[in-house]
Amino acid sequence: MGAQRSALPDLVDDSPALWDEGFGKAARGLLTGGVRCFAAQGFHATTTRDITAAAGLSPAALYVHFSSKEEVLFEITRTGHKSSLDVLTLVPPDTDPATHLRGLVAAFVSWHARHHVAARVSQYELGALTSEHYEVIVGLRRRSTSVFHDALTHGITAGAFPDADAHRVVRAILSLGVDLVRWYRLDGADSPEELGEYYADLALGMVAAAASRRAR
Amino acid sequence: MGAQRSALPDLVDDSPALWDEGFGKAARGLLTGGVRCFAAQGFHATTTRDITAAAGLSPAALYVHFSSKEEVLFEITRTGHKSSLDVLTLVPPDTDPATHLRGLVAAFVSWHARHHVAARVSQYELGALTSEHYEVIVGLRRRSTSVFHDALTHGITAGAFPDADAHRVVRAILSLGVDLVRWYRLDGADSPEELGEYYADLALGMVAAAASRRAR
Repeated sequence: MGAQRSALPDLVDDSPALWDEGFGKAARGLLTGGVRCFAAQGFHATTTRDITAAAGLSPAALYVHFSSKEEVLFEITRTGHKSSLDVLTLVPPDTDPATHLRGLVAAFVSWHARHHVAARVSQYELGALTSEHYEVIVGLRRRSTSVFHDALTHGITAGAFPDADAHRVVRAILSLGVDLVRWYRLDGADSPEELGEYYADLALGMVAAAASRRAR
Repeated sequence: MGAQRSALPDLVDDSPALWDEGFGKAARGLLTGGVRCFAAQGFHATTTRDITAAAGLSPAALYVHFSSKEEVLFEITRTGHKSSLDVLTLVPPDTDPATHLRGLVAAFVSWHARHHVAARVSQYELGALTSEHYEVIVGLRRRSTSVFHDALTHGITAGAFPDADAHRVVRAILSLGVDLVRWYRLDGADSPEELGEYYADLALGMVAAAASRRAR
């Protein structure tokens, strides 16, 4: 590896499908190029010229579409967080709280698997955002966390789940979803959907374990 | 945040306690300085001058102790992985496989909480290592994974755990331990030991859920 590992890898996730249709082809190419560069070498070591080169555009092209390298990162991070929140809101409500929680975990996990490179950039480069942009992302993260928290506390209130520490269990469930961006590969053993279903089962096991801990 | 968030943060974990006693005071200061710099701005954007400044040493001091910036990263990453493996080997064997697995998870999780900044650098900057150094780290990671895998399969063979997919469950358990380096703070609600005990319960819940999934 060494030098080879630092070379710009092919983008082996579905992030090119993420970008808002309101962006033209060049801007979408710059966002995809930004994902590849930031994933390979980090935000701080990436130049705007690296991004335009990855997109096959001239060095000046970035400033036609974005005000700065940071704005490229913000748009990637905002889109990633918004998209992973959107898939949660699309999970149909279910009268059985366990079925609903399973659906949320499966959706969150399979989104992160399918978009694991863009998700990795969105998770690991937050420190490079301006304070205003960071606050926007924190707001989106709070909304995702709330969806899980509400589903869990609803199930506890309805008596479908035993009493558990919702805050800590949700944090652990989110860890399962987020950490996979570190190791997941689309050509590995599990499809995004298979991993989602598997982790949905594990999440329900954590809820049960957390409740029995509380009851001790 | 913004500019403030890019400033070198105080090191709020116990990584200065990690370094081998064979290193002198200056070398240990450079390793701690490396952790702070790499955590704040990433390996590629950190200069050797940043590291010596963080250690309060002259710019040339780094090359007295290390051959390169990459060697500083390797020593941090090697020490982190070796130390988190060592705490696993110190967990006493137990005739009850569940007690043993609980002890392993608690030790792994509390180590990552206590050393979360050095652990974050060790996890997120692997791509910057040379291929030879990367292989050393992969070997240490395999040994940690094997400790969990052996404990789980031993419990399954002994009939203490129901039949579960050990590979996938171990990967999920490791995710709980690793992902906390992204959000854990030593001044938060849970001490490293409390979080370790909590996650040990969640891990046993995942084992049970994975087994019941297999039985379906």
